[in-house]
Amino acid sequence: MNPLTQSNLFFSSLFEDPEVTAVFETGRTFARFLAFEIALSEALAASGAVDVSTAKAAIKKMHSFSPDMNAIKVASPIDGVPVPEFLRQLRKHVGADLTPAVHVGSTSQDLIDTATVLALKEVNDTFTARLETAIAGIERLIESQGNNSLMGRTRMQAALPITVRHRLENWVIPLYRHRDSLAGMRSDLQVLQFGGATGDRSANRDKVVEIGADLANRLGLTDPGYAWHNDRTRFVAYAGWLSLVTGSLGKIGQDICLMAQQGIEEITQSGGGTSSAMAHKQNPVKAEMLIALAQYNAGQLALMHNALIHEQERSGSAWTLEWMVLPAMVCTTGRALQIAVSQLDEISRVGS
Amino acid sequence: MNPLTQSNLFFSSLFEDPEVTAVFETGRTFARFLAFEIALSEALAASGAVDVSTAKAAIKKMHSFSPDMNAIKVASPIDGVPVPEFLRQLRKHVGADLTPAVHVGSTSQDLIDTATVLALKEVNDTFTARLETAIAGIERLIESQGNNSLMGRTRMQAALPITVRHRLENWVIPLYRHRDSLAGMRSDLQVLQFGGATGDRSANRDKVVEIGADLANRLGLTDPGYAWHNDRTRFVAYAGWLSLVTGSLGKIGQDICLMAQQGIEEITQSGGGTSSAMAHKQNPVKAEMLIALAQYNAGQLALMHNALIHEQERSGSAWTLEWMVLPAMVCTTGRALQIAVSQLDEISRVGS
Amino acid sequence: MNPLTQSNLFFSSLFEDPEVTAVFETGRTFARFLAFEIALSEALAASGAVDVSTAKAAIKKMHSFSPDMNAIKVASPIDGVPVPEFLRQLRKHVGADLTPAVHVGSTSQDLIDTATVLALKEVNDTFTARLETAIAGIERLIESQGNNSLMGRTRMQAALPITVRHRLENWVIPLYRHRDSLAGMRSDLQVLQFGGATGDRSANRDKVVEIGADLANRLGLTDPGYAWHNDRTRFVAYAGWLSLVTGSLGKIGQDICLMAQQGIEEITQSGGGTSSAMAHKQNPVKAEMLIALAQYNAGQLALMHNALIHEQERSGSAWTLEWMVLPAMVCTTGRALQIAVSQLDEISRVGS
Amino acid sequence: MNPLTQSNLFFSSLFEDPEVTAVFETGRTFARFLAFEIALSEALAASGAVDVSTAKAAIKKMHSFSPDMNAIKVASPIDGVPVPEFLRQLRKHVGADLTPAVHVGSTSQDLIDTATVLALKEVNDTFTARLETAIAGIERLIESQGNNSLMGRTRMQAALPITVRHRLENWVIPLYRHRDSLAGMRSDLQVLQFGGATGDRSANRDKVVEIGADLANRLGLTDPGYAWHNDRTRFVAYAGWLSLVTGSLGKIGQDICLMAQQGIEEITQSGGGTSSAMAHKQNPVKAEMLIALAQYNAGQLALMHNALIHEQERSGSAWTLEWMVLPAMVCTTGRALQIAVSQLDEISRVGS
Repeated sequence: MNPLTQSNLFFSSLFEDPEVTAVFETGRTFARFLAFEIALSEALAASGAVDVSTAKAAIKKMHSFSPDMNAIKVASPIDGVPVPEFLRQLRKHVGADLTPAVHVGSTSQDLIDTATVLALKEVNDTFTARLETAIAGIERLIESQGNNSLMGRTRMQAALPITVRHRLENWVIPLYRHRDSLAGMRSDLQVLQFGGATGDRSANRDKVVEIGADLANRLGLTDPGYAWHNDRTRFVAYAGWLSLVTGSLGKIGQDICLMAQQGIEEITQSGGGTSSAMAHKQNPVKAEMLIALAQYNAGQLALMHNALIHEQERSGSAWTLEWMVLPAMVCTTGRALQIAVSQLDEISRVGS
Repeated sequence: MNPLTQSNLFFSSLFEDPEVTAVFETGRTFARFLAFEIALSEALAASGAVDVSTAKAAIKKMHSFSPDMNAIKVASPIDGVPVPEFLRQLRKHVGADLTPAVHVGSTSQDLIDTATVLALKEVNDTFTARLETAIAGIERLIESQGNNSLMGRTRMQAALPITVRHRLENWVIPLYRHRDSLAGMRSDLQVLQFGGATGDRSANRDKVVEIGADLANRLGLTDPGYAWHNDRTRFVAYAGWLSLVTGSLGKIGQDICLMAQQGIEEITQSGGGTSSAMAHKQNPVKAEMLIALAQYNAGQLALMHNALIHEQERSGSAWTLEWMVLPAMVCTTGRALQIAVSQLDEISRVGS
Repeated sequence: MNPLTQSNLFFSSLFEDPEVTAVFETGRTFARFLAFEIALSEALAASGAVDVSTAKAAIKKMHSFSPDMNAIKVASPIDGVPVPEFLRQLRKHVGADLTPAVHVGSTSQDLIDTATVLALKEVNDTFTARLETAIAGIERLIESQGNNSLMGRTRMQAALPITVRHRLENWVIPLYRHRDSLAGMRSDLQVLQFGGATGDRSANRDKVVEIGADLANRLGLTDPGYAWHNDRTRFVAYAGWLSLVTGSLGKIGQDICLMAQQGIEEITQSGGGTSSAMAHKQNPVKAEMLIALAQYNAGQLALMHNALIHEQERSGSAWTLEWMVLPAMVCTTGRALQIAVSQLDEISRVGS
Repeated sequence: MNPLTQSNLFFSSLFEDPEVTAVFETGRTFARFLAFEIALSEALAASGAVDVSTAKAAIKKMHSFSPDMNAIKVASPIDGVPVPEFLRQLRKHVGADLTPAVHVGSTSQDLIDTATVLALKEVNDTFTARLETAIAGIERLIESQGNNSLMGRTRMQAALPITVRHRLENWVIPLYRHRDSLAGMRSDLQVLQFGGATGDRSANRDKVVEIGADLANRLGLTDPGYAWHNDRTRFVAYAGWLSLVTGSLGKIGQDICLMAQQGIEEITQSGGGTSSAMAHKQNPVKAEMLIALAQYNAGQLALMHNALIHEQERSGSAWTLEWMVLPAMVCTTGRALQIAVSQLDEISRVGS
């Protein structure tokens, strides 16, 4: 929704995190959609809910499926989701004889939510690694600068001298917390969505437990045993985690901006930005970015919580709102972690 | 900040939760402030950091301390916190000879944050009990109405018939999750704040570990082993939990409003509101309130996350913002749970 | 909803604006409710829609009406509004013979929204006066300090020296804008709400234009000629103005906090707060408060805009949400203006 | 920041508004940057602040300037803005002899903010036209359906019958208001940004009034007579307008979703979305989108207001936050207007 930060070459490189962005690209989404459908047909066959040879033939066909993205682009705003047209094409591709083994007992939301979960799973590996790198960056600074002295400041006023160690430990402790809470959260987050039309798993009822467990397993996910179509607490709690991360990085950014002021000069760093009007300036661009990204995610989070009011068996409006917000929060978090790592590397002195 | 919802008798009873509100009243806050100071003097004495008999005498005096609330009211907006004047009075009350045993190694934020934690501890007992009651209410409905039929609705359109059980299970499952996550969160939340002027526990340094552990223990809290003055992730994660609860209740409210429409009539309930212009109307007031309370908390949460950008050793502005938001979220959650329990009780039929 | 900031004597004086708060008190609301009903009966009589002598007798009775506030307190959360019980009592008070001259063609929302408008009208006088005082405060500083020099700072880095005049002019210009835009906005905001049960003014149809115009006139309001029950753009635009005011004051607060730092010392002020742990400190409490109040209103504004999604002829949930938010924003703005005026008075030097 | 809604072909067509998006594309931004620099050199020459023949030669050169976008992409995240590298290239392109006529008395923010204003000017033409079309769409429906009857609903309950005219008039009246307020707002919004390094127009001081007026005129803007580098109220008030528009459209969307329910059936429309699981369903996708887009903008607006706290002469963090939010709000509003127009066209019956 924001061409300035997304594709305008004057501005986009400030905000883009190519690695995380790539996770949400068309090709990767397609691969996840197809993986879901193939795994579903496999699970249906394994359970005996569909004929094994039909399923095998359908799966073989599916492997060569290449969607007409233009037709999907046209259909999405009419259907509100890309899935009906995606499936129309997929079914046509496998042929009428084999469609009985395709998408049985499933619905758009199963496909889309599971694809989102699979994307988040990838992203979480990246975030864990970056958090570790950021943590290591602060720990290095504590080792090299920790015994230096700094004026402790409360309410923006000089209080009493502290060690640099004290300030930096308060930077790193929240990151330990976020790393650990992500680790604890992943098993609850990285779960299959599978409920069928109204989310009650009423299709293939006698085999649906088996199918769900098998499908989850094939996709590297856990089966929660039911569909969470209208219970968005997993995604919303995860969004809260994202904003906790960017908020803690924003605090670091705010501190750096304040330490870098002329008259304060409690930090020395390389890599500051230049100015179009004043060649002598070294702007704390990365630290400022951390503040902006934190504020951004904080604001977005309200929308994810608003989307908890997800009426009946599936809310078109609340679900759509999630698409507008969650990937943006994920990319913002990725970018903030990237910038934080880079910012920490550029600090050569703290305190004195 | 909102006299309409807080004290205007035409409106306040819509929003007030007397039990939870009482936790934040002057007298209870005073009791917590005093409990902190007494426990601190006890811990200081026990560790040998202050003279035992001085501490004992000071503690005895403290038990009879009754603050001049008017003077505190005058001083708070000047100091930004009530603590300096509170302590001035407390020190005067115990007398100059005994003040060496009072507030040693502590600071305003230790007192205020610990008092907030103690308040949340009480509140969490209430919330746990109310969640259990709400859960039992839905479980009762599942038992009595679960086999009824209902039109499943996705994207606000009739989809396929479902059982009432299916819809109600999706109401209760998030509440199970919230109950369990609160239980898991309490040990991390219910911790002592104790850091001294700049949060580095530099006073009484050789005995501070012992003092902190003892102080926490006397207050029924855990000692995290350091001060989290500028790491607000505990409070912010808790605020996220509050908004998850109200969001899940808001979803129930939204469903009830939709089920209660003329032409849909999927629910029968007593206790609806009357209209000043149309005597025949039965308004789903409680269900509507659940929606409004959910939206309210969702919006407030953004502010708590914004307050993560807590500069240096203590931010006056970010901390003040928390006071404006966190108790409001707590009371909103309390009210939503109260209303939900009452709303669930009034449902006599779901589906057919 | 926030007992800490509202009624807890340790904290409330930080946030309270007695003059603005008083506008939303029970007695003032009652006076506005009664004024509406009396003016309506007068207008009904003047138009001939009700019998003149019946109306006169009813009005005479109404002047002696004193509600049973406890019964209203009990009824409000059941009805979702205080009006049904208020009217039940009022009708009982005037007697069955005279009720045909009471509340005819009106509804709860007419009463409540008009009462809110009347409250805002009073508040706007206060805000205009305070804005003028704040403006005069900055203009005085420009006169006394304007020729001093200051280091201009961009991106939190020293740029080039500027005059103090330059910085202060950028404080006052937005306030000029807000003063002028409020003046321009009042005629659109200060309008009668009058639509009857479904907002279509269908009662007394042939005389309703006359009645509306007369009713508005008697209340000192403008008649927009229709009911805006579900068009909340007036209140929402006004809320935007409130947040623009606090945002511009928050910028002043942020600047003062930064100027007051040790090492920067670009401002001298009296009245700073004291610290419980460090007697030497002078905290920029008022400036910090301006930041917190600005952030608070910014967050609330999202909720007012959310409440624009006001379904059908009247939304219980969206309207309730307004009650939780708009008075809080009004009081926050009042408090911010109060603090700003006081803060500006305490500045004795800017720059050098 | 959101690859899903921006460039993922499965989802992006739901959200994209090609006409409005195009306004923020690289090429259009470049054209605006260059137009600013050329107009500035012209104005500098016209005022005599720089040598006329130097300016003429520089301008001639500028017309053939084509930036190395890759170098800008690399430099932007270091400098925090694209302008320093843009100018380095531009100056190199015109040559050292002619640079004295380039960018004199200006700064990054002059260029970027003015380019944003120029973009908004274009967008406002589009928005005005679309508002007129949406208004015409509702007026047409009032003409064809206005005399039909509809059950008026308050608090989601049947109240009294109303005419379709009544409901639709309450859809269109806010749009009249938004159209008129945009018209009134444009002269204040569409103003030049021109202040130089610290925003005080201190360069070319004796001629700066003349240069500013001339520069504005050449760009088709008004000269406010000063720089508003740190007074973001224009952009923020405009963002408020955007969210008022989407909020009013969201209310229409909400009404349509409710009217389209089975059991209510107060509206007939073509063009509904299909379902992957239930071929018979007609989902009110466009109406749901209007709700989601309204909620999105409401949430973003809080961030724009937060960015009013714009410290000192220029805030890197607050300005960056604006870039993340304002273009997103503009595109969301464009998309909502587009969808609203299309949605209104598809309605063939309201009421009965």
